Amino acid sequence: MTNSSKLKLKTPDEAETVFYEAFMHCDDKVMAALWADGDVVCIQPGSRAIVGHQVVVRSWTHIFHNAHPPQITYTVRNRIITDELVISLVIEEVSTDRDQAAQVLATNIYRKFENGWLMIEHHGSLVESYNQNYTIQ
Amino acid sequence: MTNSSKLKLKTPDEAETVFYEAFMHCDDKVMAALWADGDVVCIQPGSRAIVGHQVVVRSWTHIFHNAHPPQITYTVRNRIITDELVISLVIEEVSTDRDQAAQVLATNIYRKFENGWLMIEHHGSLVESYNQNYTIQ
Repeated sequence: MTNSSKLKLKTPDEAETVFYEAFMHCDDKVMAALWADGDVVCIQPGSRAIVGHQVVVRSWTHIFHNAHPPQITYTVRNRIITDELVISLVIEEVSTDRDQAAQVLATNIYRKFENGWLMIEHHGSLVESYNQNYTIQ
Repeated sequence: MTNSSKLKLKTPDEAETVFYEAFMHCDDKVMAALWADGDVVCIQPGSRAIVGHQVVVRSWTHIFHNAHPPQITYTVRNRIITDELVISLVIEEVSTDRDQAAQVLATNIYRKFENGWLMIEHHGSLVESYNQNYTIQ
């Protein structure tokens, strides 16, 4: 993956749209072109952190290979905006034909590079109805 | 909470140390002075997003009121650094006298203000041994 094969996206909004389109279509080529190089971070709900472009893209390929394309409706709940970084708090409703819908919270982070905005972090966590298991009850 | 009652922290490292000290000592006054005003974001593992200084601080007070002080050892796994924002990926090992240790991944975000660095996001998610429940198997 060279820089020239990255997407050229003018806004963080465009990057976010591309992310969810690629997710729903299980398109790992678009994912690879959306994620920046270097120490980018991806955390799927309940999973360990994955750090680095190559392993992040490989993890999406693995997910897509084993997946039924999900339906995702998403709502941006909050945005933190600076010239270089945009942090999006997104509420995702995720479902497949097989599963009941689940609600996932995502912190999505986009960074401005010379040729546009690319993704540098996706941190997802499942919203549980009751959170009795946390450690400091 | 007026601006003058905020902490004056010279680096994001200081802010991160203060965060975990306040967490371990169940100190909601320090938490209130560490978090910036406005649309700050806090997500505890498995929980919904809380947005806004007042409700975030109230949620910490509630947690601390019902908690045994936890022991937390933490390791910074990755840092994204710009002039205005620092994003820290932290691996937390959390335990209390009552509980077995749990591993939590946290995305912690700090922003530079006139008087120093304050916290603007904490997104925590529990690392599960097996992640069979995610929606797109």
